Amino acid sequence: MRALVLEQRGVLSLRDVPAVDAAEALLGPRDVRVQLHTVGICGSDVHYYTHGKIGPFVVREPMILGHEASGTVIETGDEVTSLAVGDRVCMEPGIPDPNSRASRLGLYNIDPAVRFWATPPVHGILRPTCVHPEAFTYKLPGSVGFAEAAMVEPLAVGVHAVTKARIPPGNIGVVMGAGPIGLVTALAALAAGCARVFVSDLSAPKLALAESLSPSISGVDVGREDLAERVLKATEGWGADVVFEATGSPVAAARVFEPLAPGGCVVMIGGQAEPIRYDAGAAMVREARVENVFRYAHVFPRCVAMLASGAIDVRPLITRTFAFEESVLAFETAAAAPPGEVKMQIALPQ
Amino acid sequence: MRALVLEQRGVLSLRDVPAVDAAEALLGPRDVRVQLHTVGICGSDVHYYTHGKIGPFVVREPMILGHEASGTVIETGDEVTSLAVGDRVCMEPGIPDPNSRASRLGLYNIDPAVRFWATPPVHGILRPTCVHPEAFTYKLPGSVGFAEAAMVEPLAVGVHAVTKARIPPGNIGVVMGAGPIGLVTALAALAAGCARVFVSDLSAPKLALAESLSPSISGVDVGREDLAERVLKATEGWGADVVFEATGSPVAAARVFEPLAPGGCVVMIGGQAEPIRYDAGAAMVREARVENVFRYAHVFPRCVAMLASGAIDVRPLITRTFAFEESVLAFETAAAAPPGEVKMQIALPQ
Amino acid sequence: MRALVLEQRGVLSLRDVPAVDAAEALLGPRDVRVQLHTVGICGSDVHYYTHGKIGPFVVREPMILGHEASGTVIETGDEVTSLAVGDRVCMEPGIPDPNSRASRLGLYNIDPAVRFWATPPVHGILRPTCVHPEAFTYKLPGSVGFAEAAMVEPLAVGVHAVTKARIPPGNIGVVMGAGPIGLVTALAALAAGCARVFVSDLSAPKLALAESLSPSISGVDVGREDLAERVLKATEGWGADVVFEATGSPVAAARVFEPLAPGGCVVMIGGQAEPIRYDAGAAMVREARVENVFRYAHVFPRCVAMLASGAIDVRPLITRTFAFEESVLAFETAAAAPPGEVKMQIALPQ
Amino acid sequence: MRALVLEQRGVLSLRDVPAVDAAEALLGPRDVRVQLHTVGICGSDVHYYTHGKIGPFVVREPMILGHEASGTVIETGDEVTSLAVGDRVCMEPGIPDPNSRASRLGLYNIDPAVRFWATPPVHGILRPTCVHPEAFTYKLPGSVGFAEAAMVEPLAVGVHAVTKARIPPGNIGVVMGAGPIGLVTALAALAAGCARVFVSDLSAPKLALAESLSPSISGVDVGREDLAERVLKATEGWGADVVFEATGSPVAAARVFEPLAPGGCVVMIGGQAEPIRYDAGAAMVREARVENVFRYAHVFPRCVAMLASGAIDVRPLITRTFAFEESVLAFETAAAAPPGEVKMQIALPQ
Repeated sequence: MRALVLEQRGVLSLRDVPAVDAAEALLGPRDVRVQLHTVGICGSDVHYYTHGKIGPFVVREPMILGHEASGTVIETGDEVTSLAVGDRVCMEPGIPDPNSRASRLGLYNIDPAVRFWATPPVHGILRPTCVHPEAFTYKLPGSVGFAEAAMVEPLAVGVHAVTKARIPPGNIGVVMGAGPIGLVTALAALAAGCARVFVSDLSAPKLALAESLSPSISGVDVGREDLAERVLKATEGWGADVVFEATGSPVAAARVFEPLAPGGCVVMIGGQAEPIRYDAGAAMVREARVENVFRYAHVFPRCVAMLASGAIDVRPLITRTFAFEESVLAFETAAAAPPGEVKMQIALPQ
Repeated sequence: MRALVLEQRGVLSLRDVPAVDAAEALLGPRDVRVQLHTVGICGSDVHYYTHGKIGPFVVREPMILGHEASGTVIETGDEVTSLAVGDRVCMEPGIPDPNSRASRLGLYNIDPAVRFWATPPVHGILRPTCVHPEAFTYKLPGSVGFAEAAMVEPLAVGVHAVTKARIPPGNIGVVMGAGPIGLVTALAALAAGCARVFVSDLSAPKLALAESLSPSISGVDVGREDLAERVLKATEGWGADVVFEATGSPVAAARVFEPLAPGGCVVMIGGQAEPIRYDAGAAMVREARVENVFRYAHVFPRCVAMLASGAIDVRPLITRTFAFEESVLAFETAAAAPPGEVKMQIALPQ
Repeated sequence: MRALVLEQRGVLSLRDVPAVDAAEALLGPRDVRVQLHTVGICGSDVHYYTHGKIGPFVVREPMILGHEASGTVIETGDEVTSLAVGDRVCMEPGIPDPNSRASRLGLYNIDPAVRFWATPPVHGILRPTCVHPEAFTYKLPGSVGFAEAAMVEPLAVGVHAVTKARIPPGNIGVVMGAGPIGLVTALAALAAGCARVFVSDLSAPKLALAESLSPSISGVDVGREDLAERVLKATEGWGADVVFEATGSPVAAARVFEPLAPGGCVVMIGGQAEPIRYDAGAAMVREARVENVFRYAHVFPRCVAMLASGAIDVRPLITRTFAFEESVLAFETAAAAPPGEVKMQIALPQ
Repeated sequence: MRALVLEQRGVLSLRDVPAVDAAEALLGPRDVRVQLHTVGICGSDVHYYTHGKIGPFVVREPMILGHEASGTVIETGDEVTSLAVGDRVCMEPGIPDPNSRASRLGLYNIDPAVRFWATPPVHGILRPTCVHPEAFTYKLPGSVGFAEAAMVEPLAVGVHAVTKARIPPGNIGVVMGAGPIGLVTALAALAAGCARVFVSDLSAPKLALAESLSPSISGVDVGREDLAERVLKATEGWGADVVFEATGSPVAAARVFEPLAPGGCVVMIGGQAEPIRYDAGAAMVREARVENVFRYAHVFPRCVAMLASGAIDVRPLITRTFAFEESVLAFETAAAAPPGEVKMQIALPQ
């Protein structure tokens, strides 16, 4: 099996990986085999390529990259009931122990035993086929294309974040950060009931893209104007009901309470390498609720339903597609972070 | 002051009501005086006209009808800070005692001391002007017209219901009943995050109107097909996450759990004159949560924000407008319940 | 293996069941084998004995009774990590499919695939040993005896019900019904934060027992006084924050909203064979939330912790203990429903 | 009227304040006049004495101290219905604008317009009588003494914090800090459903007092052992379901997530003068929910009910009582922070 392998920090190769073939030769009774169609490039994939690690996860042996994927079922285990050969699907990349304490509570995403694609030492799916549990493989309706379906994984981060926020209809939201995660969060916040969402960033092109997604999104260039001032002005001094931190920047994260209304909610999405400054006084006088999210749980079918109904359209975020044979180039391009790109994807041969 | 007065059951007249003038001559320091612009006709107004009472509320003295209203501020009390003369506004028709136990808890809609327009013995607002507390008067942005603004009151019922349901994005919803309240509930459910809403009714024209509101609304003619069957089929046997009962029919209400998914929520909106049949066994095996709602609280500004942003469009529901001088005719028409009409409104002279 | 077998409706025998031995000869890698110590007699066990069925569950073949159990681990599967031979344990009688949609959501108790002891066609545990998954077997601290531990199963019903109610500290509660489930619910409601609980019943001895459990429990003999009147009087007309229906009587269930405060919660615990009368008007003017519960999920370790800490003491509810050899007599006694008995248990030879 | 006046930082005098008499000569129609009986000394009172300010609140003119109070109604306004002369009461010290946006939402404690006793420029109640709104004055049952009733205010902080935490029965809790607020939080957490509470502090006498309050409280001397290690060991590595930060120390606050279980909740109670370090990574992998609380809302009647029922006993926390004439001495004593004292109170002449 030919795959895109991160050999070590900074070294990628597209080569055969016979060991993975062997490991996946046998299909479990509740597994399916999927031929991959489209795989998105995530910032974490790029980070492993450029840094060789993310927090405690260190690439010590060659690892296949990629975890945002769609494809077609080509084989089903004996006990599989909900999927059939030929079904078009997307897959949730983390597989928990279903009997763990966290999983039984419905918190499978924070099960310490979870095995997640392209997180060392688990291989990702930039390869022709993979084996995956039926329980984490979701059938696509005809109206959802493979490229969109490969966007379900990043979209799930935003949908999980807004689900945790518990948004009543008509809320005013703020999303700090207009990168891919900020943008899917803004779209998810609107779909979840926000009447209006302010998206802040330092990049004018990113803000322009954000505003192009919906007339209910207002970009705020925080290099030119103060976010809190803008939001308070637009809300008669009350503030935003919910603020999503999607920059991962400690500078931005230190200011999450400024635009927040009394009784409001902050959702921390962006990862932080070091402890951040937390303005406990500002949080208290508002009785802020702070939700800290980690990936997602239970939202893949919801994302598929919203793509199918048109409640969310992620297609404007897909700005470039590479062929599988160009995978190394794709990662080099992504590592250069070209300003006009949001989501780059790789299409596998069918 | 000239007003539409329900003299007694079945007897309406458009005549002077000097006593109301006198009562409202003095403006409290935190009140505003509003010139009415548009007033919608609600089923409850019609019911008082045709039956002379609703439950314990009996029309014993002549009462002005109307409680769905928009208008323009023409005078402000000394301590009013958020509104000015000339502001276009809509008004919440129920005024609670702000110091009651229910109000302090934020449950002002179920404060037994609430005074509600056109609910005996409180006069409604089918008249040129009224005095109202600033706290329950909401400024309209330029993009929201008077006719839409007079729809905020019925819309608020739907928005309150979906707020109580606590809808995570991507839910599948069912609304039983395609009358005005069913339709605003369906729109509110989509705005609040539902990916798809099934609306059931016995009337084909109403279902056609429902489907015309959004491609995510599917009409179910319960005279021709079984609601639960349809919903279960569309959800791989799982059911709908949330079911709204908006018919007020005991026959429909007895079946609310049938299309409901495990762990789902039912919201009872439609009023019932008598106890209904409740399938406790069906509720238990699903661990259903049942929310029972009464009018609304805290949602007027949210409704205005969603009309302004385009998240909800109620204009297709306004099917006919009468001049104030035609008010009696308007009520006679409404009492005849013409099949093609959804919401009829009365426009006052400006 | 010798076991108490319900041969058919009304016919019990204590006899060998070699088939169960055979079925359990092999221990799965994540299973434990438990020597049973104490088994409580539940109303459902008695109902199968006297009626041969409960709702859709019909005894068609001989079935071992019993599902409230404690015991000692005597063998562990290869992958078991949290339990060891000699550990004293209690067991959760329902085993779901951990990969089902309901289980993944954390709603394993309403997974349709759940297999529950002594619910046809699944055998119960009135027998010397059983095999059970580690994930549903809970270690007992030294301070919790076997008899109390066999009470965890019924206690779990009450703890699950009060968990669903979401009781803030200082609530006023009502429990309708002073049978075993009503009593554990009252104890759970106090442990969960109720300042005071009114327990209603028609039986003076049961009410006396209820009141003996805590000075914060007040019995209300509904043959002599009106429950709602009593509660409203004690709460300055406001009502109870939460009402638990634990009678299973349609007459009682029809009146659950009467003592309820505005914004309050009703929890339906008692099973009902037929639809009940539901006073939708009374529910609406209070904006009642109604939670419908089915068995329990996630509460066994919580129950063990509260028994250990003394937060809940169930020992006064255990009124009689039979030897295993007297099992048939025990069931005959239970079927006669002697007024002074609450919970009868059977102790197995060790 | 004679009162304890903080003339300026560090200068107290017990003297006549005629202006307060004049201001309160007229009783509003919904007010009551109360003869004070017992007033507790709060850390904030002492801080104003020793520092002259707390955050943005600066003592610029002489101000009467004291806000933890009980007393007897001696006069009632014309519209008062729930209280009568002779009623024993405790009072909530913060009075919001009932028509503010926050108040209408039920969030009256975070209404910026709130006027709070002994918070500049509002006088406190270390004086013979005061006038207070009926709506924030709570009748005491016979079983609750004046000294306990004057503890309702600090207790309310703990009860509000545990209410926000939403504790299901059987939770394991941690309270960081064994000062008065830490201790009432521990008691409230047990009353609200915790099976066991770990209380951490550096002071052995405070920990000894904490443990004396309940067998379910375990003291952890963080000078000698690691809090997280202790908690993880006691919970099979899972952690505590809820952690309350009640020290106000930035060092402690930086470590709140260490003992926390996956899906757990942290409640920030202790005020912080500067931003604290927030371990966003630790919060995320647990998907921690962080609630930030400010004083309390809606809990006074709940506290009274729990004192009355015995669910909470605050009497062991009252370690010393001074006569009103000794008020200056009382504050000098409190400012010295004697190690054996928890709550000191002042009894007024009756």
